[in-house]
Amino acid sequence: MNAYDKLSRIQKLNNSMLCVGLDPDIGRLPKHMEPNLSSILDFNHVVIEATKDIVCSYKINFAFYEQYGVEGFEILKATFDMIPDYIFTIADAKRGDIGNTSKAYAKSSFEYFNADSVTVNPYMGHDSVLPFLEYTDKMIFLLAITSNNGSLDFQRLVSDKKPIYKHVIEKSKAWADPKNLGYVIGATHPDVLKQIRNFLPANYLLIPGIGVQGGSVEETIKANNKGPAVVNVSRSVIYASHGLDYDIQVREKALFYKNSFNEFNY
Amino acid sequence: MNAYDKLSRIQKLNNSMLCVGLDPDIGRLPKHMEPNLSSILDFNHVVIEATKDIVCSYKINFAFYEQYGVEGFEILKATFDMIPDYIFTIADAKRGDIGNTSKAYAKSSFEYFNADSVTVNPYMGHDSVLPFLEYTDKMIFLLAITSNNGSLDFQRLVSDKKPIYKHVIEKSKAWADPKNLGYVIGATHPDVLKQIRNFLPANYLLIPGIGVQGGSVEETIKANNKGPAVVNVSRSVIYASHGLDYDIQVREKALFYKNSFNEFNY
Repeated sequence: MNAYDKLSRIQKLNNSMLCVGLDPDIGRLPKHMEPNLSSILDFNHVVIEATKDIVCSYKINFAFYEQYGVEGFEILKATFDMIPDYIFTIADAKRGDIGNTSKAYAKSSFEYFNADSVTVNPYMGHDSVLPFLEYTDKMIFLLAITSNNGSLDFQRLVSDKKPIYKHVIEKSKAWADPKNLGYVIGATHPDVLKQIRNFLPANYLLIPGIGVQGGSVEETIKANNKGPAVVNVSRSVIYASHGLDYDIQVREKALFYKNSFNEFNY
Repeated sequence: MNAYDKLSRIQKLNNSMLCVGLDPDIGRLPKHMEPNLSSILDFNHVVIEATKDIVCSYKINFAFYEQYGVEGFEILKATFDMIPDYIFTIADAKRGDIGNTSKAYAKSSFEYFNADSVTVNPYMGHDSVLPFLEYTDKMIFLLAITSNNGSLDFQRLVSDKKPIYKHVIEKSKAWADPKNLGYVIGATHPDVLKQIRNFLPANYLLIPGIGVQGGSVEETIKANNKGPAVVNVSRSVIYASHGLDYDIQVREKALFYKNSFNEFNY
């Protein structure tokens, strides 16, 4: 099954648009756990078991593993391997480089980690993105407008009456079928989300920025106007509790977000 | 010694602006070598031994290692560890993400791999770049205008009478001392290099795109106008020969580029 169909299927099966970000930080693990790398794997396992019937996807942020070098990469691989096959995975790696280099990054995400999708940075243009799109059974999420404050620095600069993120979307739209190409649109820009949704009815949008980053659930889901979307929450779910009951609290928080999204998705 | 001083020192010591990119590809190793990961480490070792008195820097492209997963990361770490301390290293990782994530990427490049510098993608703005700049004894090279064809897609779009790469440079200039902040300017844009050099006399420029990518040595070095610069060549040096004499051929090719750069750097 290709990645797009897998995502559509699990969204129906679990009745959920919720993606949980597995961004573990040794310093923020539950207090009863030893602050070391093998605890991260145990922690991810508990989060996955507590939420696998509630989410459509897990987003795995490479930086949080890469900072621990080789051992971190082992935990990253083991985390991908413990996610049930029917759940959609996002390699949140924000990669992108000249052609032969992007080809190697695509090989890493899609062949080594066997991720269903990867986040890609558009700054270097078409030949940095196309090697990822050659995997026609996979998906990419191209950064358009991100959730952080820095998104105001360059992404919203206007050229020829259109902001840069719109140039990114308009140009890249021609590079692939909507089934292979999604976009990252931060929940902190509901005005943009609404416009983009109208312009791109068929492409999946990956929407981060809910929770700690301050995006509003109601505004975000309404702006998305029932389009295909994956809404990510990381820290607000995985750090729901630092106590022994963290599995229960993580599940409750994930359920809360899943249900909140569905409530406004009419 | 901070990274900037280390780079200035080795450039004088070896009388060289040449950076060699360690971008090994199992399929392109010398014919007598087994096509496997441990051969990559042997190959890097030979390239380093053959050129360490000719170069100022090695640029290590993470993608070429990451594609082999955990074992690739082991080879990446071992490659950093085998580079002599007095040679400047560039973690060519093109990273950049929201603040807490960039912090983890910075930790990976600067603490785990102990790189002197890292390449950073500006698309996500100030809070994606600042965590790297907190390491005030290190350097970053921020992508401004890259060497590939795709650089024409978004980097040269004009907003408020200035191309995007100029916005990136003007805005980021205020974020750090020139000793911590360099820029990537592709050799395939000599017109831009000349302008930027006048605008940024003190910042190091990392210039890729010579050799296979088609940038001209003479045009590039003249456009750089004797400013502080690191000029990278990867494939044209490391794949100088596929025979048993590859150590000699790699050395000769590296010497050729070093001397060509110096010839026009007056």
